[in-house]
Amino acid sequence: MNEEIIDILVVEDNDSDRASIVESLKSAIVNVRVAAVHDGKQALDFLYARGDFRNRAEAEPPRLILLDLSMPGDDGFSVLGQIRSLDEDDSLILTPVVIFSDSNDSGDISKSYRCGANSYIIKPLSFPDFQAVVKVVGKYWMTHNIYSG
Amino acid sequence: MNEEIIDILVVEDNDSDRASIVESLKSAIVNVRVAAVHDGKQALDFLYARGDFRNRAEAEPPRLILLDLSMPGDDGFSVLGQIRSLDEDDSLILTPVVIFSDSNDSGDISKSYRCGANSYIIKPLSFPDFQAVVKVVGKYWMTHNIYSG
Repeated sequence: MNEEIIDILVVEDNDSDRASIVESLKSAIVNVRVAAVHDGKQALDFLYARGDFRNRAEAEPPRLILLDLSMPGDDGFSVLGQIRSLDEDDSLILTPVVIFSDSNDSGDISKSYRCGANSYIIKPLSFPDFQAVVKVVGKYWMTHNIYSG
Repeated sequence: MNEEIIDILVVEDNDSDRASIVESLKSAIVNVRVAAVHDGKQALDFLYARGDFRNRAEAEPPRLILLDLSMPGDDGFSVLGQIRSLDEDDSLILTPVVIFSDSNDSGDISKSYRCGANSYIIKPLSFPDFQAVVKVVGKYWMTHNIYSG
């Protein structure tokens, strides 16, 4: 596996949520390449191939970004806004972004779509439901959704 | 069932595809309310509650629009562009739109995302796969995706 090429970027500040998401994605999708970062700054460094992620300079964008909203520093809205404000010819600008948040606030939901989220999923409270939903989300975007021709 | 309130609007000019989509959605999702129209003009009349669909004037937008690209008259890009260009306070502007097309052309795919599609699904050639994919798409957007809080 080439560590520079990944399929899904998980952006989640909660350690236990992040570990569960990665494990669920790997168990649901054969050979999926997942990277996980713990805040918005790391996410942007990863996507822009800066700082600790300079070695990704030639890598394609992920095929899916699973993005928490509430994080210290750059929150999910900030990360999403920066991705969707890139130059029109930057392929990252169209990367599918699914918000995965515990907020069911209608303002957060509509703001996410206005910022360019493709989909909004609320984190289930029970652990089995949490795992099951992550698997559904991963499979939908990796197996069925087409991101580039 | 109130005919004015629907969950999913299917926009598809091919009669047999349209019938299969509606049947698959209804078999996959209990009590789902589906409306189907056969071209872009009908879709816009439905969404804007004009013409034959004047009785929908007070109805909420659907929770999902499943949209073919290649259609006579207003094609999928035109319908999508008109929805995403509405006034910011029109709730229709954020309605999830999934493109369901037989095109695997990268230009069609990226143009769809640029026009504001949430997701792009290629119609499978085999009938069982076609039905299965419609069921996955319907369940994802009706059961897991959150559209308003």
